[in-house]
Amino acid sequence: MSEYSELELSVRDYECDLQGVVNNAVYQNYLEHARHEYLKSHKVDFAALAKNGINLVVIRAELDYKGSLTSGDSFIVRTRFARKSRLKFLFIQEIHRQGDERTLLSAEITGTAVNTEGKPFIPNELTHLLE
Amino acid sequence: MSEYSELELSVRDYECDLQGVVNNAVYQNYLEHARHEYLKSHKVDFAALAKNGINLVVIRAELDYKGSLTSGDSFIVRTRFARKSRLKFLFIQEIHRQGDERTLLSAEITGTAVNTEGKPFIPNELTHLLE
Amino acid sequence: MSEYSELELSVRDYECDLQGVVNNAVYQNYLEHARHEYLKSHKVDFAALAKNGINLVVIRAELDYKGSLTSGDSFIVRTRFARKSRLKFLFIQEIHRQGDERTLLSAEITGTAVNTEGKPFIPNELTHLLE
Amino acid sequence: MSEYSELELSVRDYECDLQGVVNNAVYQNYLEHARHEYLKSHKVDFAALAKNGINLVVIRAELDYKGSLTSGDSFIVRTRFARKSRLKFLFIQEIHRQGDERTLLSAEITGTAVNTEGKPFIPNELTHLLE
Repeated sequence: MSEYSELELSVRDYECDLQGVVNNAVYQNYLEHARHEYLKSHKVDFAALAKNGINLVVIRAELDYKGSLTSGDSFIVRTRFARKSRLKFLFIQEIHRQGDERTLLSAEITGTAVNTEGKPFIPNELTHLLE
Repeated sequence: MSEYSELELSVRDYECDLQGVVNNAVYQNYLEHARHEYLKSHKVDFAALAKNGINLVVIRAELDYKGSLTSGDSFIVRTRFARKSRLKFLFIQEIHRQGDERTLLSAEITGTAVNTEGKPFIPNELTHLLE
Repeated sequence: MSEYSELELSVRDYECDLQGVVNNAVYQNYLEHARHEYLKSHKVDFAALAKNGINLVVIRAELDYKGSLTSGDSFIVRTRFARKSRLKFLFIQEIHRQGDERTLLSAEITGTAVNTEGKPFIPNELTHLLE
Repeated sequence: MSEYSELELSVRDYECDLQGVVNNAVYQNYLEHARHEYLKSHKVDFAALAKNGINLVVIRAELDYKGSLTSGDSFIVRTRFARKSRLKFLFIQEIHRQGDERTLLSAEITGTAVNTEGKPFIPNELTHLLE
């Protein structure tokens, strides 16, 4: 399994909802962005793949919310990438608040790739990351 | 366990991403909106609770993505509400596309409520829905 | 100039920010959705045009915010469509809260269409709406 | 008038819409975030003000869209702050793409502050920035 990759981000005020904390759905934005940055740092470009008819898709997301980010918080998204099965890959991700290093979210995101016919496969670009 | 409640919605084009389909995170928006509408139809107002220091929070989300919504699609969010444990409640939710009635997403969202001291509890407003 | 077209929507709680009201940027989402619905009701499909290399684009937005929508509010988006110049069209839009009918936002959105070479033009689909 | 303040950001893929470019509304997110960072760097905390019943609000936004950001782009948001009238302040903002330094958006955002009674005023925290 690969090493953790880390992405440092800060809460933007528009991401907070009427409870004054980052809205649940926004964490999926953070995680997606961290996955795409992880892939880009390994020469895999999500948008370029999509243009070529190869769509990386999420098929299952499990998210454990353990605490809330709020205005002014900075945080780290840790991302690890692994093979789950022949046609599925897995991102193991965590969000840690800067300062107290508390883990606020743990997530497992299962994905695959689909070609223009909608058939699942693992593209070559990803295969070597999964060995 | 409660009956299904149904909310009919349509995809808005800004919810689609560069793959031309509704972005993963947006489904959590749909699900949250359906949960709040479910609660409102049972006289529980998420925003009013928040103003009074009672925050309903998601502590775990499991989402199985089985297909994609895209521009022009209408869909139904089905929401069921149940007690999970003494301090946790559960929303069982599904998204069905109108037309072919295909199930595109199944989700289980576990939540609790926290008071101003951050202590989890089930507010009275919810208790009678969970009997 | 065309008649008003009306779209009725409700605030979704995730659209509210830490001030407890709908975030500024979200009004642009509402307005875009209303423009696309306006176009669709006149047989112009934004997403289908984009697939065919014709991109309808906003080149100027003027928004006057006169009041705030909040959780629980329903509202009407009124949309009118007009030619602005040879290569530009204009959407005149307003958001009115249901109940007190107060105008909360007035907007003028100037757009054009660009073809695959990035050249601005008015597609035939729109021309007959602008006569 | 104040000097420009600069904030460097990158496009996140979820911010792109089905045209493959950053959605119009997202630029308002970028601009808001840059305004709040500008204020924070001058010891004015938007979220803390809101908690104390002082809401900074946008009353007019003018946005000129001159080009599109897309996946992979980095950009600079330049923000300048000025008094517009006795009760209004003005943010003059621009978005420049990194690399070709092209200006993709120019904006003028007029705001005021409202107290708990909804009365507009300029809070002391802002007054000294506007002298």
